[in-house]
Amino acid sequence: MSRQLKQIGDDIWKSKAEKVNSELFTLTYGSVVAQLCKDFNYDYDEVNKELFNMGLNIGVRLIDEFLQKTQLSRCANLRDTAEVVSKIGFKIFLNITPTVAHWTADYKSFGLILAENPLADFVELPDDGKANKELWYSNILCGVLKGCFEMVQLDCDVSFVEDTLRGDETTEIRVKLIKVLKDEIPAGEE
Amino acid sequence: MSRQLKQIGDDIWKSKAEKVNSELFTLTYGSVVAQLCKDFNYDYDEVNKELFNMGLNIGVRLIDEFLQKTQLSRCANLRDTAEVVSKIGFKIFLNITPTVAHWTADYKSFGLILAENPLADFVELPDDGKANKELWYSNILCGVLKGCFEMVQLDCDVSFVEDTLRGDETTEIRVKLIKVLKDEIPAGEE
Repeated sequence: MSRQLKQIGDDIWKSKAEKVNSELFTLTYGSVVAQLCKDFNYDYDEVNKELFNMGLNIGVRLIDEFLQKTQLSRCANLRDTAEVVSKIGFKIFLNITPTVAHWTADYKSFGLILAENPLADFVELPDDGKANKELWYSNILCGVLKGCFEMVQLDCDVSFVEDTLRGDETTEIRVKLIKVLKDEIPAGEE
Repeated sequence: MSRQLKQIGDDIWKSKAEKVNSELFTLTYGSVVAQLCKDFNYDYDEVNKELFNMGLNIGVRLIDEFLQKTQLSRCANLRDTAEVVSKIGFKIFLNITPTVAHWTADYKSFGLILAENPLADFVELPDDGKANKELWYSNILCGVLKGCFEMVQLDCDVSFVEDTLRGDETTEIRVKLIKVLKDEIPAGEE
């Protein structure tokens, strides 16, 4: 299945995705983070929250394009979901394919390892002795994922646990399934 | 020359530009504008300025990738510059090619007509009776252009004069050359 998903993701990326230059995206995102750091007076907890919320708003909309472009049916379990997120979701929006790894024994939580991260190309964190401990620069991605999951009735925690920008070995987003919602109104919907 | 430039722009877009999904870019930009509107309490003059300044910071960096990817030499005059901006600049970053139009008689000012605008896809302005008169939603583009021009020693005014988001017939950015700087330190450089 994993191989087949990769093919689907590649095909959609090539034929159906409208694109812009990723450096423009990187720089635009960078200026957003810089702006927020300034607005919140370098309170990185607040910046993380704001980026997450921006992502949430994006995710609940982006899922529409995702479902429309992929025509996928509901995943049978979180393992399938993880593969779809990596090989189709990340592929068709960011043109990267994170590695799915570090499953917990109960298969309710997994990691997405980003070998590349278009948001953070050539980025350096503020050299103030705390950004590298407190700021999750690419936190918008967690919000986007959270928003997408909500719209397909998956209540998940999504957060960074490592980021090479901070000097960590890898960049890893952890996804933890809290529960499968039963056709409730998604929390992101207004 | 115009035809040749188009070919160069197409080739670079196809072979040298790293890309991301334009809907992700559109939504990210939209959340930036929404954030600024909130932060500045819907004072759209302030939002326009802030977007412009963000663009300025992006432009003075983006020009590096532009010059590196295109290997172009200095334009002989503003007419060549306008063609390069449209057929290569806009093409390799946003995958659009605005029409160059509305030259003034002295050839010191021209318009860029955007038939498409990836920043504004599916966007609606706030329905508060003043956004459609005061907000230049895509004003970051003017800042980017201003920043790029500065780095190649062209002091220009860059501003929107029409935007279909406001209900105008077209979307037009006007560029007006103030003067050609003579190897001064560009104003955007710090």
